[in-house]
Amino acid sequence: MSALRSAFPILERVAYLNAGTDGPVPQAAQQAAVRELASQVEQGRTTAHFERRFELQDGLRTGYAELLGCDVADIALSTSTSEGIGKVLAGLDVGADDEIVTSTDEHPGLIGPLIAARARGARIRAVPFTGLADAVGPATTLVATSHVNWRTGELAPPELADTGVPLILDGAQGAGAIPVDVLKLNCAAYAASGQKWLCGADGTGMLYLAPEFRERVNAIAPSYLSFADASRGFESELKADARRYDTPSLAREVIAFSLAALDILRAADLSAVLARGPVLAATLAGRLEAHGRTVAPRGHTTLVAWEDDDPEATRDRLATADVIVRNLPGTPYVRASVGAWSSEDDLDRLLDAL
Amino acid sequence: MSALRSAFPILERVAYLNAGTDGPVPQAAQQAAVRELASQVEQGRTTAHFERRFELQDGLRTGYAELLGCDVADIALSTSTSEGIGKVLAGLDVGADDEIVTSTDEHPGLIGPLIAARARGARIRAVPFTGLADAVGPATTLVATSHVNWRTGELAPPELADTGVPLILDGAQGAGAIPVDVLKLNCAAYAASGQKWLCGADGTGMLYLAPEFRERVNAIAPSYLSFADASRGFESELKADARRYDTPSLAREVIAFSLAALDILRAADLSAVLARGPVLAATLAGRLEAHGRTVAPRGHTTLVAWEDDDPEATRDRLATADVIVRNLPGTPYVRASVGAWSSEDDLDRLLDAL
Repeated sequence: MSALRSAFPILERVAYLNAGTDGPVPQAAQQAAVRELASQVEQGRTTAHFERRFELQDGLRTGYAELLGCDVADIALSTSTSEGIGKVLAGLDVGADDEIVTSTDEHPGLIGPLIAARARGARIRAVPFTGLADAVGPATTLVATSHVNWRTGELAPPELADTGVPLILDGAQGAGAIPVDVLKLNCAAYAASGQKWLCGADGTGMLYLAPEFRERVNAIAPSYLSFADASRGFESELKADARRYDTPSLAREVIAFSLAALDILRAADLSAVLARGPVLAATLAGRLEAHGRTVAPRGHTTLVAWEDDDPEATRDRLATADVIVRNLPGTPYVRASVGAWSSEDDLDRLLDAL
Repeated sequence: MSALRSAFPILERVAYLNAGTDGPVPQAAQQAAVRELASQVEQGRTTAHFERRFELQDGLRTGYAELLGCDVADIALSTSTSEGIGKVLAGLDVGADDEIVTSTDEHPGLIGPLIAARARGARIRAVPFTGLADAVGPATTLVATSHVNWRTGELAPPELADTGVPLILDGAQGAGAIPVDVLKLNCAAYAASGQKWLCGADGTGMLYLAPEFRERVNAIAPSYLSFADASRGFESELKADARRYDTPSLAREVIAFSLAALDILRAADLSAVLARGPVLAATLAGRLEAHGRTVAPRGHTTLVAWEDDDPEATRDRLATADVIVRNLPGTPYVRASVGAWSSEDDLDRLLDAL
């Protein structure tokens, strides 16, 4: 993994443990974006510009599909996990007949669309994360929760695959962090980010929609590229596959950034990358406990959260030592994000600075 | 305007008349994006990264508000005209009681959300563009149309300001092309693009929502920054102003690109820029007619469309002479976009190549 590590200039200087927010940026991603910018200045944004954008989009979509273990036709490109989750929940015809089970540990990117669903009449039942599967009852019509708990690093109960109720997963801390198989998870939808564990650009992301679930999710705001043939005006028909949900416009430099970052991870062997982060995170958790810290309950994931008397002050204090972690407002936790690019030395620096 | 023109390297070589799709890119915009990319590689994406993003967003929002003549609190940032229009129409509680008047000349970015509204029961009444105001009747609950017709360059009938029915304007060919005053237009919403007449990055745009209309437009998929205080979970409340509709994630390099491009136009005096494009476009229209071409009916705007036996072939033929225009699928037109950065020489080159 030393070749992987050397792809990220910041890691020479900083113990950067914040990929759960935004990953470190590979030099190659910057270079790819700069190339695409230069071409726009010199060649303009004509037919060739759009062809290049679509080529890059196809490449990114293919990479995201490989990552989630699904068909490329089942992936829409988004600007964020939040946009993906929002599109699914806003596109579902939910109302007073619906009970949506979720957890008390969700990110605002899921809470927001659930608040909007509540305004349309749905009942939202928020239970502790580990109790999600038990909370599904005869009235439950939908489960919407995190694949990996963003506060603790716990994994969603595997029994959620077998409740018989459609499962919508916020995969912000899953995709690129741990192996993800959307077919095995048996989820109806899986939304994730390009800029976190995949080290891509802000404003990129993916939405998987199971083919059999797609017909239930209205494309609430289709645009030019959502249609099979947009020149048919009010008779235009949506694309048959998940591209109907694509975000309307992604900058070429941003797609190239995310694709180049993904290529860096692939060059290091994606399965090795996905295996290493959780192992190193478990090492950190063990060492924190050995130092007397109370670590939040966690799964075999890349997040490690521990209790702290003043998480925000601790975050700031660590930052002055070039150790980058984050606090989680509303919780007692400081959280470290440990990726395959992290080193034992990064962990030492964190423990020393604490 | 020669200083403005020199900001765009491509204009040294190419008669670039395609800002109605994507504007020419100023060198300074590329440089601004490159700086922001370098900082992410070197400094990581930590607290300072987000502060910088928000600073850039504030700057862009302020610029867009000045451009549209509204309060900065009434502008949401979007990735595209399509996203803005889509958010408004999807957020309205429209159904079988609604008749939405629109034109037969709309862009797919408006047609898509109208098709979605039709699926929820609304009646869509599409009439010729110039007949829009006359088509508003007692059953009409909404008008949704272009400010500037993207096919012809006509202006929406000014009487639409006085129908008493909320007016949603697709301003893709308005903002940055001609003076826009949303208060004078008396529109409920105005959506526009950052990458066309404002020469910004793909994946940027603006949505104006009149304060009194805002309460009718549900935030269907709010995310982290939509909330006044997202740490309150399911009790979180939306921001009071239009920021509740902000797109969830815009890349820092992309915002900087669009802001730097806007600064180039401001440095050339925005009111002079907005005055010059339409004058030069009128010159082109007159010269085309003098050459026996049939020019589409148009207003005092920056678009000039003329009939052609094979618009696509003509577009490609002109491109080989480094004259960039576009065809409009489903119409007999080739369309030239004439900006303040265009020159008489560009028009000569177009006429010669024809």
